[in-house]
Amino acid sequence: MPLKVQPAWGEERGVRQTGMKVRANRAASGRVRMLDVAREAGVSAQTVSRVLRLPEKVAEATRRRVLGAIEKLNYVPDLTASYLASNRSRVVALVLPSVSMSIFADTVAGLTSSLDSAGYQLLLAHTDYSLDDEEAAIRAFLGRRPDAMVLTGVEHSARAEELLRLSGIPVVQTWALTDNPIDMVVGCDNVGAGFAMGEYFIERGYRRLAFAGTNTELRSRQRLEGFARALAGKVAEPLVVGREDLTRQMDEGAAAVDEVLRRQPDTDAVFVASDALAAGAIFECRRRGVRVPDDIAIAGFGGYEIARHITPGLTTAEVSGRRIGELAAQLIVTRLAGKALEQDVVDVGFRIVQRDSA
Amino acid sequence: MPLKVQPAWGEERGVRQTGMKVRANRAASGRVRMLDVAREAGVSAQTVSRVLRLPEKVAEATRRRVLGAIEKLNYVPDLTASYLASNRSRVVALVLPSVSMSIFADTVAGLTSSLDSAGYQLLLAHTDYSLDDEEAAIRAFLGRRPDAMVLTGVEHSARAEELLRLSGIPVVQTWALTDNPIDMVVGCDNVGAGFAMGEYFIERGYRRLAFAGTNTELRSRQRLEGFARALAGKVAEPLVVGREDLTRQMDEGAAAVDEVLRRQPDTDAVFVASDALAAGAIFECRRRGVRVPDDIAIAGFGGYEIARHITPGLTTAEVSGRRIGELAAQLIVTRLAGKALEQDVVDVGFRIVQRDSA
Repeated sequence: MPLKVQPAWGEERGVRQTGMKVRANRAASGRVRMLDVAREAGVSAQTVSRVLRLPEKVAEATRRRVLGAIEKLNYVPDLTASYLASNRSRVVALVLPSVSMSIFADTVAGLTSSLDSAGYQLLLAHTDYSLDDEEAAIRAFLGRRPDAMVLTGVEHSARAEELLRLSGIPVVQTWALTDNPIDMVVGCDNVGAGFAMGEYFIERGYRRLAFAGTNTELRSRQRLEGFARALAGKVAEPLVVGREDLTRQMDEGAAAVDEVLRRQPDTDAVFVASDALAAGAIFECRRRGVRVPDDIAIAGFGGYEIARHITPGLTTAEVSGRRIGELAAQLIVTRLAGKALEQDVVDVGFRIVQRDSA
Repeated sequence: MPLKVQPAWGEERGVRQTGMKVRANRAASGRVRMLDVAREAGVSAQTVSRVLRLPEKVAEATRRRVLGAIEKLNYVPDLTASYLASNRSRVVALVLPSVSMSIFADTVAGLTSSLDSAGYQLLLAHTDYSLDDEEAAIRAFLGRRPDAMVLTGVEHSARAEELLRLSGIPVVQTWALTDNPIDMVVGCDNVGAGFAMGEYFIERGYRRLAFAGTNTELRSRQRLEGFARALAGKVAEPLVVGREDLTRQMDEGAAAVDEVLRRQPDTDAVFVASDALAAGAIFECRRRGVRVPDDIAIAGFGGYEIARHITPGLTTAEVSGRRIGELAAQLIVTRLAGKALEQDVVDVGFRIVQRDSA
C-alpha cells in the first residue's frame, strides 16, 4: 500500500542550459589529440603511439614522460583507430541470458578478474533468454570485431552458429556441454545433474515426482531428460510443468508450484530447474501453508546465494559459475597468445548439496 | 553435504584439433567482404555501404537485393570502420555497480528496450562498487568512442568526472540526484526516501532504531542522512552498521542484523539500505528464531522482486528501476537527435510500500 508518492518529475530543479550544440563545439575544439601529448612530453607522436601499443619497447624515462603528459592533459587515446590498425580490439564479448541472476554474476566475476589481468575488457549483452535476441547481439558484436566471444549455453540459432564459425575468433560456449561445439566449451553435464537429482529423490523415498523448468531452454530440457531417466522403471513418470517467462524468476517459480499442486495434488517432491525458480516455489508454499519438505520436497539447480539463505535451506545441484568464468578466460587468453590448448571441452562438474528442503 | 562429485575436468571427451593457426587462416581467407556482397547483388560497393548506413536513401528493390545478398553470404559489416568514418558508434555504454541485482536488471531492461528501437546497442561494464574500477571502465569505454554513457550514482572519481566532461558525449547519471551533474540525471531523492522511512517508523511507534548500509557508497549515506534527520529530536539517534562488501548481499545483510542485535539488543526496527541486504537480514532472523516484525521490524530500499516474495513481505522504499532506464534512454536519444531537452534533471520519485515486515 503506497503511503507517500513523490512527484514523477522534479519541480524545483532548474533546467540547465547545456544544449547539444554547446557540448558538441566544446568537444570538437577541446579534445586533446596525440600531437598535444607529444608536444607536452617533447617527443614525436609516433613515440606516444608506441607507449600506448608497445610500452615494453620504449625506454623507461621516455615512457614516464609520455604517461605523465597523458595524465596531465587527460588524453583518452582513440582505441577504435589503433585497434583497427592492429587488428586487435582487446575486447571479449559476453552474451548472457539475463543480468539479474547471481549465478551469471559469478561467471562474469570469474571472467573479469582473469581477463583484466591479461589486459582485456569485457563487453556484455543480454538476451532475455531469446535465441533471436542472441543472434542480434552476436551479429552486432561481430561487427565490432571483438577478439573473442563467450556464449551461455550451446543452443543458438543456425545463423548465429554459422556467423561465429565464419568469424575465425575464439568462441567459448558455457554452462552446458556438447559433442558439436562451435569452438571451445566450459560447462557442466546438465543431463548428468538431472539424473543425480532423480537418484537422490528416489533414495530418499520420494515416489510422486514433478519437474518444473522451461521448455524453451535446452539446458532445462537436459536436466529433465536426466531426471526422467533416473526415474524410469522405478516410479511413475514425473509431471512436467514448463515456464516460459524467465525474467521474473520468483513469480514463475510460484506459478509452477501452484500448477503442480493443482494438477497432481499428491506430488511429494519437485525438481526445479533453477534456484531462483525454486526459491519462488518455496515462498509460495510458505504463503499457502504448504510445509517444505513435509508436505512437498523442493530441490533446485545452480547454487545461487539464496539457496543457502532461504528457510528451509535449498537442496540443489551446485555448479561453480565462477570457475566457469575463470576457465573460459584461460582458454581465450591461451588461444589468443597463439599457444596450444590441452583441452577445448572442459567439464567443471556439479555436486548435489543436501539441505533441508528435500 | 556433497553426495556426488563429478571430475573437474572431462575425461572421455577427445581434444579437437582446431588450433589457433587453422582458424586464423580460415578467417583471413574466408571472410566475406563488401565487394563480394556487391557482386552477388549486382550493385556497386558504394550502394552496399549506403544500404547499411542510410537505408532510407536507397530504392526498395535495390535495398532488398542487397539485404538478400548480405543474408545469403553471411556478411558481417565491419562497423568499427564505418562507425569511425561517420564518427558515430551507435553504442551506448552503461556502467553498473553489479550485474547481480534485479534492481539494476530492471534499469538495463528499460534502457535496452528504448535504445534498441532507436538502433543503439548497449555495452555494459561493472565495477563491484569500486570508484577506481569505475574510472578504469569509463576510461576504457571512452577510448572506444561510445555515443553516450550511463552511470550509476552521482559519485565518481575526480578524474572520471573530468574525462566525461571533456568527452563531449551525452552522459546520464542515474539512481540519485545532484546539484552539480556531469550532464544529465535520472534518479530519485535518496535523502527524501530515508526521511520518509524515518517518519514511517516513528508513526508506527518504533523508538529504538538502527540503520544498516554501506558507508562507502553515497546513495546509502544519503538514505541514512534523511533517516537520521526524520528521527532528530524525536527518538535517539539510530545505531549505524556499515557493510563494505556488497557482492554477497544476503551474507552482508545477515552479518548486519547480527551486529545490530549484538550492539543494541533492544533495537525495535532496522532500515536496511537495499532489499537484498534486508532479505539477508530477515533470513538471519528466521534462522535464529527472532520474529519479524514482532521482535524486530525490518524495512528495505529498492523494490526488488524478493521484497514481494519473502515472508514476511518486505516493507520498502520502492523506486522504478525500469523507468529510470527508459527515461535515461529518452534523454540520450533526444540529445543525439540534436533536439532540445525539456529537462535534464529528472526525479522519478519513490514510494513507501507497506508490507508485513515493518
